[in-house]
Amino acid sequence: MIGRPGYPAEPWCLRETSLDLDGLAHSESLFALSNGHIGWRGNLDEGEPHGLPGTYLNGFFEERPLPYAEVAFGYPEAGQTVINVTNGKLIRLLVNDEPFDIRYGRLLEHERVLDFRTGLLHREASWVSPSGQGVRVRSTRLVSLVQRSVAAICYEVEALDTAARVVLQSELVANEPLPPGGGRDPREAAALQTTLHSEQHRSEAGSASLVHRTSVSNLQLGAAMDHQIEGPPSVQISSESAEDLARVTVTAKLEPAQRLRLIKFVTYGWSAIRSQSAIADQIAAALTAAVQTGWDGLVAEHRAYLDDFWGGADVEVEGDLRVQQAVRFGLFHVMQAGARAQGRAIAAKGLTGPGYDGHAFWDTETFVLPVLTYTAPRAAADALRWRHSILPQAQIRAKQLGLAGAVFPWRTIDGRECSGYWPAGTAAFHVAADIADAVVRYVHITGDEDFERDVGMEILVQTARLWASLGHFDARGGFRIDGVTGPDEYSAIADNNIYTNLMAQHNLVSAAKAVQRNPDCAQELNVTALEVNAWHKAAKAMILPYDHELEVHSQSEGFTRHEVWDFDSTSSDQYPLLLHFHYFDLYRKQVVKQADLVLAMHLRGESFSSAEKARNFAYYEALTVRDSSLSVCAQAVLAAETGHLDLAYDYLTEAAMMDLGDLARNTRNGLHLASLAGVWTALVPGFAGMRDHGGTVAFTPRLPTGITRLTAKVCIRGSRLKVEIAPTATTYRVLEGQPLELLHYGQPMTVAIDSPIFLPNHERPAGPAPTQPKSRAPMPHP
Amino acid sequence: MIGRPGYPAEPWCLRETSLDLDGLAHSESLFALSNGHIGWRGNLDEGEPHGLPGTYLNGFFEERPLPYAEVAFGYPEAGQTVINVTNGKLIRLLVNDEPFDIRYGRLLEHERVLDFRTGLLHREASWVSPSGQGVRVRSTRLVSLVQRSVAAICYEVEALDTAARVVLQSELVANEPLPPGGGRDPREAAALQTTLHSEQHRSEAGSASLVHRTSVSNLQLGAAMDHQIEGPPSVQISSESAEDLARVTVTAKLEPAQRLRLIKFVTYGWSAIRSQSAIADQIAAALTAAVQTGWDGLVAEHRAYLDDFWGGADVEVEGDLRVQQAVRFGLFHVMQAGARAQGRAIAAKGLTGPGYDGHAFWDTETFVLPVLTYTAPRAAADALRWRHSILPQAQIRAKQLGLAGAVFPWRTIDGRECSGYWPAGTAAFHVAADIADAVVRYVHITGDEDFERDVGMEILVQTARLWASLGHFDARGGFRIDGVTGPDEYSAIADNNIYTNLMAQHNLVSAAKAVQRNPDCAQELNVTALEVNAWHKAAKAMILPYDHELEVHSQSEGFTRHEVWDFDSTSSDQYPLLLHFHYFDLYRKQVVKQADLVLAMHLRGESFSSAEKARNFAYYEALTVRDSSLSVCAQAVLAAETGHLDLAYDYLTEAAMMDLGDLARNTRNGLHLASLAGVWTALVPGFAGMRDHGGTVAFTPRLPTGITRLTAKVCIRGSRLKVEIAPTATTYRVLEGQPLELLHYGQPMTVAIDSPIFLPNHERPAGPAPTQPKSRAPMPHP
Repeated sequence: MIGRPGYPAEPWCLRETSLDLDGLAHSESLFALSNGHIGWRGNLDEGEPHGLPGTYLNGFFEERPLPYAEVAFGYPEAGQTVINVTNGKLIRLLVNDEPFDIRYGRLLEHERVLDFRTGLLHREASWVSPSGQGVRVRSTRLVSLVQRSVAAICYEVEALDTAARVVLQSELVANEPLPPGGGRDPREAAALQTTLHSEQHRSEAGSASLVHRTSVSNLQLGAAMDHQIEGPPSVQISSESAEDLARVTVTAKLEPAQRLRLIKFVTYGWSAIRSQSAIADQIAAALTAAVQTGWDGLVAEHRAYLDDFWGGADVEVEGDLRVQQAVRFGLFHVMQAGARAQGRAIAAKGLTGPGYDGHAFWDTETFVLPVLTYTAPRAAADALRWRHSILPQAQIRAKQLGLAGAVFPWRTIDGRECSGYWPAGTAAFHVAADIADAVVRYVHITGDEDFERDVGMEILVQTARLWASLGHFDARGGFRIDGVTGPDEYSAIADNNIYTNLMAQHNLVSAAKAVQRNPDCAQELNVTALEVNAWHKAAKAMILPYDHELEVHSQSEGFTRHEVWDFDSTSSDQYPLLLHFHYFDLYRKQVVKQADLVLAMHLRGESFSSAEKARNFAYYEALTVRDSSLSVCAQAVLAAETGHLDLAYDYLTEAAMMDLGDLARNTRNGLHLASLAGVWTALVPGFAGMRDHGGTVAFTPRLPTGITRLTAKVCIRGSRLKVEIAPTATTYRVLEGQPLELLHYGQPMTVAIDSPIFLPNHERPAGPAPTQPKSRAPMPHP
Repeated sequence: MIGRPGYPAEPWCLRETSLDLDGLAHSESLFALSNGHIGWRGNLDEGEPHGLPGTYLNGFFEERPLPYAEVAFGYPEAGQTVINVTNGKLIRLLVNDEPFDIRYGRLLEHERVLDFRTGLLHREASWVSPSGQGVRVRSTRLVSLVQRSVAAICYEVEALDTAARVVLQSELVANEPLPPGGGRDPREAAALQTTLHSEQHRSEAGSASLVHRTSVSNLQLGAAMDHQIEGPPSVQISSESAEDLARVTVTAKLEPAQRLRLIKFVTYGWSAIRSQSAIADQIAAALTAAVQTGWDGLVAEHRAYLDDFWGGADVEVEGDLRVQQAVRFGLFHVMQAGARAQGRAIAAKGLTGPGYDGHAFWDTETFVLPVLTYTAPRAAADALRWRHSILPQAQIRAKQLGLAGAVFPWRTIDGRECSGYWPAGTAAFHVAADIADAVVRYVHITGDEDFERDVGMEILVQTARLWASLGHFDARGGFRIDGVTGPDEYSAIADNNIYTNLMAQHNLVSAAKAVQRNPDCAQELNVTALEVNAWHKAAKAMILPYDHELEVHSQSEGFTRHEVWDFDSTSSDQYPLLLHFHYFDLYRKQVVKQADLVLAMHLRGESFSSAEKARNFAYYEALTVRDSSLSVCAQAVLAAETGHLDLAYDYLTEAAMMDLGDLARNTRNGLHLASLAGVWTALVPGFAGMRDHGGTVAFTPRLPTGITRLTAKVCIRGSRLKVEIAPTATTYRVLEGQPLELLHYGQPMTVAIDSPIFLPNHERPAGPAPTQPKSRAPMPHP
């Protein structure tokens, strides 16, 4: 899979030099642009051919009834699905009355480049029409990181060899027909044939707008466009609009080598509560600002935003250009997903596709936010503010379930539970502790005390209350959390899942500490000393199942006594197992979909001895099939920690190729954001050994053979730290800000600006290499 | 609830003397007639008012898609629902141009009597029409136990006081509109708006027929009627038919005290494979036979069938007329449900209503077949032959689930799994062992060796194979069955459910013994010595969870360490809990919907010491809420066995009133057959202490205060045994057949015809009375 011909390994961009029609949907996901508010899939400007047309607005969804063969109390009745909104990307081209469609005529040249430094998507194509007219098309696209409602395209067409009459139709299209959905794969989006109802349409002098409303969720959406045109004097412009279509048409006669240039400014807005005219005004205002900024202005401010981002977030990898490219590709998309989400969720696919119905899961807090906390902390804070904003829904849900505090939804867009299969949804209570963990990490790493008081406290207190009510003390005084589902979705409804219990323990203790730091906030939340005492007691008595015969922790009670899955009889085409075996069979056997205990050993590493980690990792490695893209980075981190550097490198390689190589064969539905974040995780918590369990950020750097240098920039308490790891030694530099207290292999040090510290790396002795189930070893690194 | 005014306690009938319009659907279930092939709810002859019109043919269903919010591998895609077929009960009456409808005019008298000895449903009504014309209507209805396709009605109308012109319309009506379904209660039928497609209709000279076909399941159904009429010379007859209606109209002028008598013969037939004309011929032939037999002939042969049944099945209860009535009511309906099912299932509601979609569950084998085995063994054999006939589907399902042998469906009509919620369906593998147990009991009690070879062997072998593949040996050599659901549906997907494991153990050992008895059959089934050895090994090593601290068995591993349900905070209107609490909460706590371990102590009583039974019963009694009507009889049996005779009597009373008193408030959807069987169970295995664990049928009789004599007739190996229990002694008599070896309090004896044995009862010392959860104590006996 490595080296898929279309995408050569390059340090700062993703380049496509040929067009694979069967792989279009895949490339549309990779080339998606987003700012966390607007998402534009990398569809071709002319709209067709397409894999999956996609324009998304964060938080904008349609509702659908959730059906059940057998109803029961507390099942969510309505699902939410992200929908394809008004397409503002469309620029159709007619060359002498023949539409520019690369399926006809001859495509002489094709290139698309996503530039991680500029944030621009470039395209260049040379095409000869069926009747022999040559044209060159160049387009550049951005979704502005600075002006949140704005996207723009610079589109240029040039006549080759002979003169040509060209017509450009720049459009806004609502209710685009979508290709039929797949059906049997639960990871795809619900096949929702949405209809947006037209509320208003308008066009005049090169600009136009459409306002629509959804049928059931009753959300309003506006899209507007305006244009700047440069071309020969023959250029003519007309505008028109109808319910689902606004069109600005530009015609010109181009002499050979003459160009027609169209700059298209597009703005979006939506609201559940504002009036139609307020939305129309909002998109008009944003449009005016964009036009006044101009194309060059938009490009320049976009670049400045990204320069700042990379200045605090870049990771350099020497010795493996593919990994170098992948970590920047991943950081770029993770940044895009969160940059301007501002009070909305970061979905599992960001805004790159409709997979998982556009829902946000625990993935965000556990896999994406640690990266953003260190590289774009404001985006991390925004994502957690969204969780804070849905606390009312989470408290209602808790009440419905007979629990105290807050029960955050397993999957949602607007905060209400949308999971239609509770053993792998509602029962996965760990999401509460994952959110709390992200809050604690954010506050710890940024020192943002206002955030802790405004946002963090309430989340920590309500989640701690959940755990206190969900668990109970057994006759021997142990605190048990029974009947829950951990991260591993090939087990469910188990007692004392160790990941859940460890994360809940952390949640309880962290809430108690936050209460101590913020007594006034705590009082507002009616926290009593008795309550805090109960949290401490529960945390202290938390049961952590251990198998004394095997000398390993048990993922949950009884797990290690289950039958081991018959891996030898399972063929490689029977993965992912969930598409080939019944849940009942997966649940009752020792087979792990994704890191569970292993993830706990990363996030709660201080709770295990090194020897325990080594034994546990070896045991669970032999059971883990990685049917979830969430697994690989945790396995990489623990492989690195237990000294299996080659294996860690393999996992890093797999994380790097997850979307670029389409390893899960579903990147067409959107990128795996958590897995993209995982490339960073495999490098920074992995090879740099960065941990933040205690009061101090700690490093235990160690490179695998093949990676000759690894440099990572991270933001800690407002300072920018650069860690540069060579095979035998590591250099710590503060680039900006106050001095930082850090640990290098457990030894404390203070790093100040202009005073780099250079320290030798330690050896990391490892036992025999762990083995994976048959055919489930990771892809080998180069 | 006892003594619901409409149903006075009478020994041999159920009598209604007033008409409660709100309770119509309830009474229609109680007064339903069936022979196991045809089911007629007790709708009024004139069709309206009705609670729920219902005519059912065993095995005749429509398919519907089963929807899921999230799909997964191996979920059944199609559900099956019993449907209301052509109504042949309808006889409308017009009195001087006013329809006889008891909602209008004045109903002077009303009585309905279901006679358990004759099997006839009588009705008598005196009515004055709105314009003042008095009539008396008498009808008698039967669904023939002798002629399987035949039902008949004798309908008589008499003019009172003044002469009247009457019109009778005797009809066959297809696609009757049904009242809208309830919706949120999973125990109700799917709201299926079925359409039967007309294939053929015909009428001539007082007879008519309709043939229809279902849309999706593609089953064909025929109904025909013919009439005999006695009345004044003025009688005129006409016939007509259309797609969904066939009508024979009889008009007459009646002088005061003059009567018009209509005898209506109705026949039904259906098939998945036979042609339309074959079905039309079949119902015509059955009709000819019925007409030739005549009304009196049908009544006489019906009575003879019932005389024979009661001669071997009657239970007499002295001292409690209500229980006396209930046990005969229950036996009558259980007999009706199975009498002529012949290769079709006995559904949970028999053919008395659409509840549970007309599906058959494990209820049949575990609760109904033990009664039929002792009272109508041929019906028990027929029901097991149905299980045998669906082995192919069960083997396909096993293969799909990656298992060996046969996986019988949790709920079905035609043999395919219809359960849309697998944690309480597919995971409830115990159904396999329940079927095997019914096979073993039937063969043991009847000595029917041909049945064992033709039917039993294959069921035993295929179910034993299932257990061998479902379980596994753990490191310590124990045989575990992980991730299954036992009878208690308030726990699910648990390890080593003790009921399941004990029943599986019995299944494995019984299959091994049957193989030894039938080596040739075993060879045909490719059973090897190695395989049988593995069964023995698994049975011997079967894990039975025990809590050494509490000194009780654990319903499943870990169960006794779960939090105890907060019964004190649960109000009586929050039962059944499943309608008020989420499954996740029920599953993770100690709360028992229905006897699980307690049922195991009945069916596998030889596996527990008396002391264990007493401790276990007390412990689980405090956790059992009886939200299932299946629970009460097992609790009655164990209460009796552990010496809590008063409590056992309370449970007996509750079982007796389940449908008569509508305790579960859903009898309107059909009778609870298992609970009706449970009245017998509470009396015979309960107070008579009848057990069949070992080689010999054993009794430990003991009456509670208030029941002064209990007599039960049972069939054992072709002999008819009568056991008569007085407070201090018991008399055993063989009424017919060979001498029987029996045990009385563990002492062997041989009872031969004409040599009754009279033996004293023993005392049964009991510990302190067990307690039930708040508000869940059984209804007290009188």
